Amino acid sequence: MACYVQKFGGTSVGSIERIQHVAQLIDKTYRAGHQLVVVLSAMSGETDRLTKMAREVSADPDDRELDVLLSSGERVTIALMAMMLRNLGVKARSFTGRQVGIVTDGAHTKARVSRVDTQRVLAALKEGVVPIVAGFQGINEASDVTTLGRGGSDLTAVVLAAALHAETCFIYTDVDGVYTADPNMVPTARRLEKISYEEMLELASLGAKVLQTRSVELAAKHQVPMEVRSSFQDGPGTRVVKEDADMEQVLVSGVTGDRNQAKITVIGVPDQPGIAAKMFVAIAAAGINVDMIIQNVSQESLTDISFTVPRGDLKAATSLVQDLAKEVGARTFEVNEAIAKVSLVGVGMRSHSGVAARMFATLSRDGINIMMISTSEIKISCVIEEKYMESAVRGLHQEFELEKPTIV
Amino acid sequence: MACYVQKFGGTSVGSIERIQHVAQLIDKTYRAGHQLVVVLSAMSGETDRLTKMAREVSADPDDRELDVLLSSGERVTIALMAMMLRNLGVKARSFTGRQVGIVTDGAHTKARVSRVDTQRVLAALKEGVVPIVAGFQGINEASDVTTLGRGGSDLTAVVLAAALHAETCFIYTDVDGVYTADPNMVPTARRLEKISYEEMLELASLGAKVLQTRSVELAAKHQVPMEVRSSFQDGPGTRVVKEDADMEQVLVSGVTGDRNQAKITVIGVPDQPGIAAKMFVAIAAAGINVDMIIQNVSQESLTDISFTVPRGDLKAATSLVQDLAKEVGARTFEVNEAIAKVSLVGVGMRSHSGVAARMFATLSRDGINIMMISTSEIKISCVIEEKYMESAVRGLHQEFELEKPTIV
Repeated sequence: MACYVQKFGGTSVGSIERIQHVAQLIDKTYRAGHQLVVVLSAMSGETDRLTKMAREVSADPDDRELDVLLSSGERVTIALMAMMLRNLGVKARSFTGRQVGIVTDGAHTKARVSRVDTQRVLAALKEGVVPIVAGFQGINEASDVTTLGRGGSDLTAVVLAAALHAETCFIYTDVDGVYTADPNMVPTARRLEKISYEEMLELASLGAKVLQTRSVELAAKHQVPMEVRSSFQDGPGTRVVKEDADMEQVLVSGVTGDRNQAKITVIGVPDQPGIAAKMFVAIAAAGINVDMIIQNVSQESLTDISFTVPRGDLKAATSLVQDLAKEVGARTFEVNEAIAKVSLVGVGMRSHSGVAARMFATLSRDGINIMMISTSEIKISCVIEEKYMESAVRGLHQEFELEKPTIV
Repeated sequence: MACYVQKFGGTSVGSIERIQHVAQLIDKTYRAGHQLVVVLSAMSGETDRLTKMAREVSADPDDRELDVLLSSGERVTIALMAMMLRNLGVKARSFTGRQVGIVTDGAHTKARVSRVDTQRVLAALKEGVVPIVAGFQGINEASDVTTLGRGGSDLTAVVLAAALHAETCFIYTDVDGVYTADPNMVPTARRLEKISYEEMLELASLGAKVLQTRSVELAAKHQVPMEVRSSFQDGPGTRVVKEDADMEQVLVSGVTGDRNQAKITVIGVPDQPGIAAKMFVAIAAAGINVDMIIQNVSQESLTDISFTVPRGDLKAATSLVQDLAKEVGARTFEVNEAIAKVSLVGVGMRSHSGVAARMFATLSRDGINIMMISTSEIKISCVIEEKYMESAVRGLHQEFELEKPTIV
């Protein structure tokens, strides 16, 4: 008898019909005799509806009250699911974040889980009950409801899987796994059978929305195997597991393209120690996430500094840079929104060299100019002109033969 | 500095605009320097929406899960109201049923309050905070959410008012008080300035939906003064208070008409001891509430027994009586749905005689036949043909001069 956690996202429980369908999936696992904990999100659209109401009553709604408001959505889905399952003869019982024992810090709307009291869930499992758990929510030490931030239901699922030493944490969503590239961009993109935690983290931070980043971090830390599956079609998904020898034989696991980038170049900066630091300290203090930074070779004691920020932060960054450029005595600055970042991810890069050179050659062959480069142990990213993004992703997908099934 | 409880019903918080308006009412009391606890219902229509979803997933939804589902509606209104009030500069904080310390028995969907732990609310009041409390909900000893049944937010308000020894428990609704008759039926109906708990209880059990019956019982027990007010217009409402000498000078406080009645007559019942008991024990066991019962004088050892039931229970009652009539050897039975009950209520009846005679004379003068009569210390009810109900109510309202302001 194995213990599984199954998490279903908002689209999977977005209507009475969807809830009915998911109830049947749960019923199947239950009939197979497994221990089972189910984690649910709010119905799709519900969180947006509630957020909109909050904005209507207040331009800057109180965070504690926002959590009371937003946590109501999951209560609806867990109650409906438990009713439906009981109808099917499954001994199901709803659990709020409090009842499932998720205790967090006090950071409302983005709380971090500090501990899990599994007593009630364990007792329920022992009775043969299937706990239907409200994702995304916990309580703080003052016994107030907190929420775990966007995608927080994934985190609830992994936290419980870790605490219960579950065999696998299934994340059911509207896609059937993680692909070698966005299938909308690359028709030959292939579903990966498995992927390492680290690759998944790189992909998530590159904008793949399949799994919430923190949940993958936690799964890696506690070695909880995850599997992304579709609740809309049968069949296997993508397993997210510990890196193994098979994976290292594959050069590249996936290629991504990310338009959510903008570049700022500060021109004619005096090349003196401490000036770059001054700029980036100020930008970080404003809560703006700088991704890549490059600095040109100095000419006549003047240098150019380029960096990228998420497009949503560009306005704030620009107004900051305006002041900073003046302050440090730079000549001027330029903003470029028409850029994109293409990246290759794969643990194979650790043991194989030449991936970067092949990437640059491929882009060059297709006449695509590289503006910036950054690398990690298992990732290479290039900033290019936005208009070339799709062709770059397609070219790289082909060059590294990602459409071909791996040997494993 | 007085302590007040203000409860706002579903129509009073039915939209963002209504919540804005109510926030201003609360703000006004707060600025006057009073201690204040606010109790809210779910937005009007929300409970019906959730109930409908429950029926869609299950013909007989589990009661525990129904409570998890239904209690989500109040969480939305308390969070929105607290946000809005904080915007206005009021130190408001939302409290769920659990947080406000309402502990109930385990009877899901119709739980009874067993105790109130006011610790958290008292601490909040001491800090100058206005607790915004989710009505209708509590928790049982197993720490599961329970709900208090239809109109349960009134009960939450009175329970808190009693526990906090509040000066007055204001019930804000969409009418500005209790009237001498339904103004839709009697254009000259007059708002009562005050009414006794007992009169209010009689009126509530006669179908006046202004206040929930149990909340009035509890208010009477703890001598909590209540006041029904409109949140849609300014001005005083109706105070519900302990009976006083003024009230006894008034013969009749109000007249009601109730169509929600049906009459069953069992004809030719053998007049033997125990037969009537047998019938009514069986009917009570089926959960059907019998209101009035009359038995004709026996002729040749046969008698007729008539009784009234709510129309919603008529189908169940009829099928029961079908069997019972056969069992006790009755000749046949008749059903009459076209009846109504008109009632006079007033504590003045205790000290004044002749009210009943005047009621019968009035109905008789207008050619209205009385089918059944029942009386209590402060109430007289007559069952008549349904088509005469409105004219009977109008005639009685005029006969007892209810349109005229009382001396008090």
